[in-house]
Amino acid sequence: MIKVGIVGGTGYTGVELLRLLALHPQAKLHAITSRADAGMPVSQMFPSLRGYVDLSFSHPDGAHLEQCDLVFFATPNGIAMQQTRALLDAGVKVIDLAADFRIKDVAVWEKWYGMSHACPDLIAEAVYGLPEVNREQIKTARLVANPGCYPTAVQLGFIPLLEAGLVDAGGLIADAKSGVSGAGRKAEIGFLLPEAADNFKAYAVAGHRHLPEIRQGLARVAQHEVGLTFVPHLTPMIRGIHATLYGRLKGDADLQALFEQRYANEPFVDVMPAGSHPETRSVRGANRCRIAVHRPQGGDTVVVLSVIDNLVKGAAGQAVHNMNIMFGLPETMALDIVPLLP
Amino acid sequence: MIKVGIVGGTGYTGVELLRLLALHPQAKLHAITSRADAGMPVSQMFPSLRGYVDLSFSHPDGAHLEQCDLVFFATPNGIAMQQTRALLDAGVKVIDLAADFRIKDVAVWEKWYGMSHACPDLIAEAVYGLPEVNREQIKTARLVANPGCYPTAVQLGFIPLLEAGLVDAGGLIADAKSGVSGAGRKAEIGFLLPEAADNFKAYAVAGHRHLPEIRQGLARVAQHEVGLTFVPHLTPMIRGIHATLYGRLKGDADLQALFEQRYANEPFVDVMPAGSHPETRSVRGANRCRIAVHRPQGGDTVVVLSVIDNLVKGAAGQAVHNMNIMFGLPETMALDIVPLLP
Amino acid sequence: MIKVGIVGGTGYTGVELLRLLALHPQAKLHAITSRADAGMPVSQMFPSLRGYVDLSFSHPDGAHLEQCDLVFFATPNGIAMQQTRALLDAGVKVIDLAADFRIKDVAVWEKWYGMSHACPDLIAEAVYGLPEVNREQIKTARLVANPGCYPTAVQLGFIPLLEAGLVDAGGLIADAKSGVSGAGRKAEIGFLLPEAADNFKAYAVAGHRHLPEIRQGLARVAQHEVGLTFVPHLTPMIRGIHATLYGRLKGDADLQALFEQRYANEPFVDVMPAGSHPETRSVRGANRCRIAVHRPQGGDTVVVLSVIDNLVKGAAGQAVHNMNIMFGLPETMALDIVPLLP
Amino acid sequence: MIKVGIVGGTGYTGVELLRLLALHPQAKLHAITSRADAGMPVSQMFPSLRGYVDLSFSHPDGAHLEQCDLVFFATPNGIAMQQTRALLDAGVKVIDLAADFRIKDVAVWEKWYGMSHACPDLIAEAVYGLPEVNREQIKTARLVANPGCYPTAVQLGFIPLLEAGLVDAGGLIADAKSGVSGAGRKAEIGFLLPEAADNFKAYAVAGHRHLPEIRQGLARVAQHEVGLTFVPHLTPMIRGIHATLYGRLKGDADLQALFEQRYANEPFVDVMPAGSHPETRSVRGANRCRIAVHRPQGGDTVVVLSVIDNLVKGAAGQAVHNMNIMFGLPETMALDIVPLLP
Repeated sequence: MIKVGIVGGTGYTGVELLRLLALHPQAKLHAITSRADAGMPVSQMFPSLRGYVDLSFSHPDGAHLEQCDLVFFATPNGIAMQQTRALLDAGVKVIDLAADFRIKDVAVWEKWYGMSHACPDLIAEAVYGLPEVNREQIKTARLVANPGCYPTAVQLGFIPLLEAGLVDAGGLIADAKSGVSGAGRKAEIGFLLPEAADNFKAYAVAGHRHLPEIRQGLARVAQHEVGLTFVPHLTPMIRGIHATLYGRLKGDADLQALFEQRYANEPFVDVMPAGSHPETRSVRGANRCRIAVHRPQGGDTVVVLSVIDNLVKGAAGQAVHNMNIMFGLPETMALDIVPLLP
Repeated sequence: MIKVGIVGGTGYTGVELLRLLALHPQAKLHAITSRADAGMPVSQMFPSLRGYVDLSFSHPDGAHLEQCDLVFFATPNGIAMQQTRALLDAGVKVIDLAADFRIKDVAVWEKWYGMSHACPDLIAEAVYGLPEVNREQIKTARLVANPGCYPTAVQLGFIPLLEAGLVDAGGLIADAKSGVSGAGRKAEIGFLLPEAADNFKAYAVAGHRHLPEIRQGLARVAQHEVGLTFVPHLTPMIRGIHATLYGRLKGDADLQALFEQRYANEPFVDVMPAGSHPETRSVRGANRCRIAVHRPQGGDTVVVLSVIDNLVKGAAGQAVHNMNIMFGLPETMALDIVPLLP
Repeated sequence: MIKVGIVGGTGYTGVELLRLLALHPQAKLHAITSRADAGMPVSQMFPSLRGYVDLSFSHPDGAHLEQCDLVFFATPNGIAMQQTRALLDAGVKVIDLAADFRIKDVAVWEKWYGMSHACPDLIAEAVYGLPEVNREQIKTARLVANPGCYPTAVQLGFIPLLEAGLVDAGGLIADAKSGVSGAGRKAEIGFLLPEAADNFKAYAVAGHRHLPEIRQGLARVAQHEVGLTFVPHLTPMIRGIHATLYGRLKGDADLQALFEQRYANEPFVDVMPAGSHPETRSVRGANRCRIAVHRPQGGDTVVVLSVIDNLVKGAAGQAVHNMNIMFGLPETMALDIVPLLP
Repeated sequence: MIKVGIVGGTGYTGVELLRLLALHPQAKLHAITSRADAGMPVSQMFPSLRGYVDLSFSHPDGAHLEQCDLVFFATPNGIAMQQTRALLDAGVKVIDLAADFRIKDVAVWEKWYGMSHACPDLIAEAVYGLPEVNREQIKTARLVANPGCYPTAVQLGFIPLLEAGLVDAGGLIADAKSGVSGAGRKAEIGFLLPEAADNFKAYAVAGHRHLPEIRQGLARVAQHEVGLTFVPHLTPMIRGIHATLYGRLKGDADLQALFEQRYANEPFVDVMPAGSHPETRSVRGANRCRIAVHRPQGGDTVVVLSVIDNLVKGAAGQAVHNMNIMFGLPETMALDIVPLLP
């Protein structure tokens, strides 16, 4: 049994980790920390966990996370970088669901996240936890930077095209739509139901923190810089990301076959039949990305549709996938979940 | 392995049965019938099932349901009664998720459902599949009438009070609210998103088909007739039923203890701590009923709050529970699901 | 032109007042105060008001509200009572949309609202602004206590029955459902879209602040104390209240005619035809209460369905109605709005 | 008073026309036809209109539409073209809210709409009713083709850029999101609340009927053919369209000033301040398009955000605007509506 700790268990990625780990046959929850809610039974905050999680939130100081085999950080940005070195030194593996170790260029990270990085040397060691790209490195990693939700959906959609050199990498467009849980479990007026329901809007058009992360990932597979316009939108639903991706084709190819072959052996990427329009609900609650590729009217613009559940494949599910890989378990363990539809 | 057939697999209870059975270690899907969609891969209609259900819908005539160990009817009312006798004669067990075998009094059934019953004698044999009341009879049943969604939520909330004779059984009130999936997967204008979203209404105040079913169930536990006013409402959500139940107390009692004791050994009924307000999302996707009991201002009115997922504990999950009981399997097999929250 | 001030213009009742007053031919906005957002153009916070409201939020200290003819308080409870006396002394009329002047019994108010009242003598003077009951007193009032949203829907539904002495006033039940805007424009986790959408729950079953207000209003029309069980629920929509009311009939009567006659001359109460189920969306954005009365199966339980838009007839619209009455204007001025459907 | 007829009053554009015309001081409803619902009071189908519309639906044969001054067609495609000539011959002006007269090239129309056109000669006469482009022609038109919802939002966003020749017209991208009312008031499973809520998807990526309409409109202002990729999406809300538009800049310009100047005199187009993210709810219920223009990171991609209420500026409101222009009335008559927020 893997002894697991969760730092910051009161947010949406935290409760989602708990949902998945509660039924994981090889994971045992050691502690779930929350500075503000220490002492409260986890199942009191989240009644959905009644009967599944008997722990109470621990104060970080008394949680003895160094006794864990693995610690997940489901915290705001800037927390994991404070505590990771000590855990690694104690032999604990770490998966950070926040952004502290995602960006390799420290200066870029510090600019977009507005703080100094506490341990730049660990950034170099950290493995970017997108299994479809970095599976081998994840196997031996001590520290995994779990990808962002938008970056997961966008990268998986562009990767086959960029690896094959089929699109003009200088003019990529990612028009992405997220459910409101992507904003986290934070008390902000803009995400109240009366503000966000029956409403649609773009945000952060001038620049979103996931932009450099996506650019870095795409540049890696393209093996050169990419030009990307990324426009996120808020859509009135709880879970789900739909990325609509546009690129200018440079050559001809069987795009359907290209995508199918790229992901043929991936347990969590489903290339839909030609002509499909994947729906976010078709992955609700499941660790899966469904993709369809289109070439409207046979023109030179390729349109890729990529959907995930932002809290699963875009966060907690991908983290459990990474855990499974890091500990040599079957990759689908505890992730064999049929999406909830309707 | 139990060889399972599903008649009418294109509705919400059908797809929900498939979601649950896909991961059931002792069930093997033999056929899923649909007259209108015969030949279509099930996973084409429900992409959520891609990778989990490889069957196509069969035409009823070629489905060889008599080869099954168990057939579920997830059909409109009036279908199961046409086919059940032949299946029973062939040694197949039957669980009807519709209303054909729920009401013991044929005249009452025919009045509320507006048709003649095809096999009144089987009504007598049918066991009403509310395990919390009829577990022993279900074990040996050939034919189970799976309860309606409202009746499940309402009965579980009133049962402890009626069994204990604590409320005036002549003046019960059940104010129930259902998500829109309760109306089924039928093309009707009133259930379109632009009609049903951001809207709330009562319906069928003059009389709803679940009224006689609830009355029958409550009368059985009370051991005499009951007077019930039942007002169903449509609430703008996908899944979930919230029943708010009112009764006039006849005597004094520790209501919290009463409820806790009544359901102490029930795997799928959760009595919440005193003072709780169960939310429908706390059971989303799970086969569970959560109940809280209140006595506002210490008066003589008892208020019971009872929530279920109408498609799980109110339909497909309860049906799988009944299957598990009928075949001597652990009751929670394939039903050990953590609710999806948020 | 009536010179109007609004104290606390950043909440939902504030922006709704602005929506209505912007097109009121006899009202001129003098100042809209907000301590926290002073200086910000109102239309920056609420882009829906671009082109209609050119003012910026004023700091209370510089707003010169004493120059107004009328001041609306769209503030949290406990603010209006601090400032009302000075305004009245300056000859300004006041309509409080909060609860400071609704409860005549100061001790009851102080118990439920958890503070000492700053001006108990003004409570006696204040007129409870339910025009269907108090029209004459409102005409000459200096200070109007605008009713709560639940109390408006519940009282209008029970009044005809109580005035006629037709129901057992000791055992009334009001099962009420509100959209989330009823909770106000406050940053609280429980009202985030991912918490409140696709979810239904009761709250405050043990006791809600609107309970004493409703009891007081019903007692007044019944001319004796009433026994009321009031259970509010949160329903996943933006606007709307649906009250489902239950009473035990003491005698026989033509209930439909009773309701129609009671409200025959009321411009903002619509008694629907017999057998109707009013929907909240049928009053969305409009200052209207629609009511239907049922007697299921001809039994002795009467069921009244009453719907309002909580922000209009339940708050800002009723306040403008009161303003029109206080200033001798046509009652429907600026309130002749067709509900937004769908 | 303008005597107005509406053909096909039972859909969403029909009820929205009624909402607007009910308070129009110069319009008098003569007849509202519905073949299926003839005889039913309009306010029975749409209780929101109780007290505002006293008519019943008429059978088309007895409606005497030739006595009208103006007839609106709020019908499915292919109806208006059957009846328009007779009305025009009788001296009645016609505004078609469907697509029968929008596309000038008959062959293109017949290909996309799958039927033969009944009166190709009238297509030439018809004026495309986008007032921001065709105001002068609308003034004297007998027959106006009211623009589609997507085309309105997309064209208004691209027009300033194309008129100024600032973008590469060969590679335009319009990523558009619509609320579900855009699909009409039709009983189809895909638009049921349990299917469309908490879900997001693209549709018709291979080709949508609004594509040729948009291309035609943009080509007219660009004065040459344009290349456009148009991807519509379904978003879980009732009303609203958000178009996110992308173009490659060919030169430098003050984009903010360009947009502000273009629409300076337009009563129904609001160019938001630089850096804004217009929300669909900011125009809910109102005949308004709000636009913001961005140039992320100062690159060569321009991003335009354009929002409308699909039923108002995208349908019925624009139709009333056209009526006002055709009859020499103030353009904003009956359209001076403050959006409903929240």
